[in-house]
Amino acid sequence: MLDNSNIPPRTELERLGEFGLIDYLTKNIKLKHQSSIKGVGDDAAVLGFDEGLRCIVTTDMLIEGVHFDLSYTPLKHLGYKSVMVNVSDLAAMNAQARQITVSVAISNRFSLEALDELYQGIYLACEREGIDVVGGDTTSSTSGLIISITAIGQAKEEDIVYRNTAQENDLIVVSGDLGGAYVGLQLLEREKQVFLSTNQRVQPDLEGNDYILERQLKPEARTDITAILKKLQVKPTAMIDISDGLSSEIMHICKQSDKGCNIFEDKIPIDPTTYNAAREFNLDPTVCALNGGEDYELLFTMNLSDFDKIKGNPNLTVIGHITEKAQGYQLITKSGSQHPLTAQGWNAFSEGEEKHAQDNQE
Amino acid sequence: MLDNSNIPPRTELERLGEFGLIDYLTKNIKLKHQSSIKGVGDDAAVLGFDEGLRCIVTTDMLIEGVHFDLSYTPLKHLGYKSVMVNVSDLAAMNAQARQITVSVAISNRFSLEALDELYQGIYLACEREGIDVVGGDTTSSTSGLIISITAIGQAKEEDIVYRNTAQENDLIVVSGDLGGAYVGLQLLEREKQVFLSTNQRVQPDLEGNDYILERQLKPEARTDITAILKKLQVKPTAMIDISDGLSSEIMHICKQSDKGCNIFEDKIPIDPTTYNAAREFNLDPTVCALNGGEDYELLFTMNLSDFDKIKGNPNLTVIGHITEKAQGYQLITKSGSQHPLTAQGWNAFSEGEEKHAQDNQE
Repeated sequence: MLDNSNIPPRTELERLGEFGLIDYLTKNIKLKHQSSIKGVGDDAAVLGFDEGLRCIVTTDMLIEGVHFDLSYTPLKHLGYKSVMVNVSDLAAMNAQARQITVSVAISNRFSLEALDELYQGIYLACEREGIDVVGGDTTSSTSGLIISITAIGQAKEEDIVYRNTAQENDLIVVSGDLGGAYVGLQLLEREKQVFLSTNQRVQPDLEGNDYILERQLKPEARTDITAILKKLQVKPTAMIDISDGLSSEIMHICKQSDKGCNIFEDKIPIDPTTYNAAREFNLDPTVCALNGGEDYELLFTMNLSDFDKIKGNPNLTVIGHITEKAQGYQLITKSGSQHPLTAQGWNAFSEGEEKHAQDNQE
Repeated sequence: MLDNSNIPPRTELERLGEFGLIDYLTKNIKLKHQSSIKGVGDDAAVLGFDEGLRCIVTTDMLIEGVHFDLSYTPLKHLGYKSVMVNVSDLAAMNAQARQITVSVAISNRFSLEALDELYQGIYLACEREGIDVVGGDTTSSTSGLIISITAIGQAKEEDIVYRNTAQENDLIVVSGDLGGAYVGLQLLEREKQVFLSTNQRVQPDLEGNDYILERQLKPEARTDITAILKKLQVKPTAMIDISDGLSSEIMHICKQSDKGCNIFEDKIPIDPTTYNAAREFNLDPTVCALNGGEDYELLFTMNLSDFDKIKGNPNLTVIGHITEKAQGYQLITKSGSQHPLTAQGWNAFSEGEEKHAQDNQE
């Protein structure tokens, strides 16, 4: 007799039918928020916000072959990430995600078990961040997997932080460290090539690189930072999340605020794992931080007078300051010379830029 | 010299770059609503609702090769329709659309001019319905065109109409007429095959069928009906929009309301153009109405005592009534016999069902 015990079960999606599939995917939803008045199951969801609260809305679409490669991206991680990138956008407004709608298109290449993994990741992220899934759309696709999520959050008007309100002399601060997600992607791409070119005989060598792999595959939105800042009574003057790389993001803040900036290369926080792996790929770690993207850290400006409140905080690094517009966008290198930042960074490489969807039509 | 005057201009998308493209597509947006506090241009949009109003959210994803065929769907119509299907979902809640986010993925097969046409249709629908585009996502696709729209509306709690509140003896009413969109699709598919099989020598013969073609290509959400009902002081007891066919939709209302229904075949409104074209295809017009889908009419139940208020209204047709659950879902045919309705209708054909995305994970 054949031993089938190692073959994972495969249930074809068509066995459930359209409505059966939706029932299956949504049957365990328990709405957490009072504001989620009606979730899945009608023509639309009904939400109710407390008096005076603003409704904050963002949306992101992830497409197989453009934003992710399923040969090295576990579906559960992908589901998790697809929620987190939206949560990150809301955090960048200083708002908390409360509800999401999830639209997924899949080809019959995917089994019910595969779809289940994707949704496990989605629900895990929702559990972590206190989010209700209140609607969506499930449809077939002619080829790959497509995930489109819209997140809805709430915030008091006075708490919302925009991009266009940075002031001259403000400090420029970044959370966590940068460049890791991009270097992690390079590692995954390299090992994929090795795996393919050796007819799948050589298994991927990813040892010691857990940190940068996690940065790429399972990023966390920095909702902890907005909580820390609230506790420290620091309200950023402007904020954005880092999805396209530090360079592009600081330029968004400066352009919209009609200001310039000085960024100091030696202040940019880069993890040793990122640094060493970048070197292995003959990449400049600073360039990875400036243009790599997908770090989903927060970049914000704050009043100089608040500096003492954040001094020594291991989560936050001051990397420069806002200048008048005429000064332009400057990177002060380790050697002390000055390079103008560009959308692709001071030493252009474009791959990172093109790989990412943007935020809310920024 | 060659005469290039008939060749439409083609601008490659990559010439504008990611941010240039977004600027181009959003530069003419003028926010109409006070509730649209911040639109395109930040990490997320900021909306403010008047006290006591509910926020109603729906989302739909349209995928090339699944939901539309660009060989006979003009991009401007497609843009228009992609907004209207969401507006229709909100109308089915008795709510008005106020804001949308628009996510579009496109391959480099599309020129800037093509994308422009799509957005012209999107903006035209928004103009008609008084909707602000407040955000979105523009990204590349490996193959086809993908459009994902989320619509946000508002309504007073007491005005919202759900699916699960139909009562025994309620009248079942439908707006407009049914089956046209499905027969229109058959016509377009047939002419496409003729066009292809004759090496593009025989041009499509669509004469006299404008009505059903428009039903398929450029549907209108019936926001006029919700306005009429308000004026007549009729509040539906339950409501849904007809995206998957009358049969499927009345069953949603009955199942969620724990009721049964009688639908009278001879009452189902079918336009003569639909009727004749269906006959030409050897299709039963009633089956097209029951299972065709994409008509985007409203199906609702109302109290019998309100009948005088709608009697004789050319927009509304009473097609049956709600019964107790034990009676099941019945179609009373023209000959007086009784057939149980099924999700695929009493005489199953499944194509229509599979071609549509569903509503809010209904």
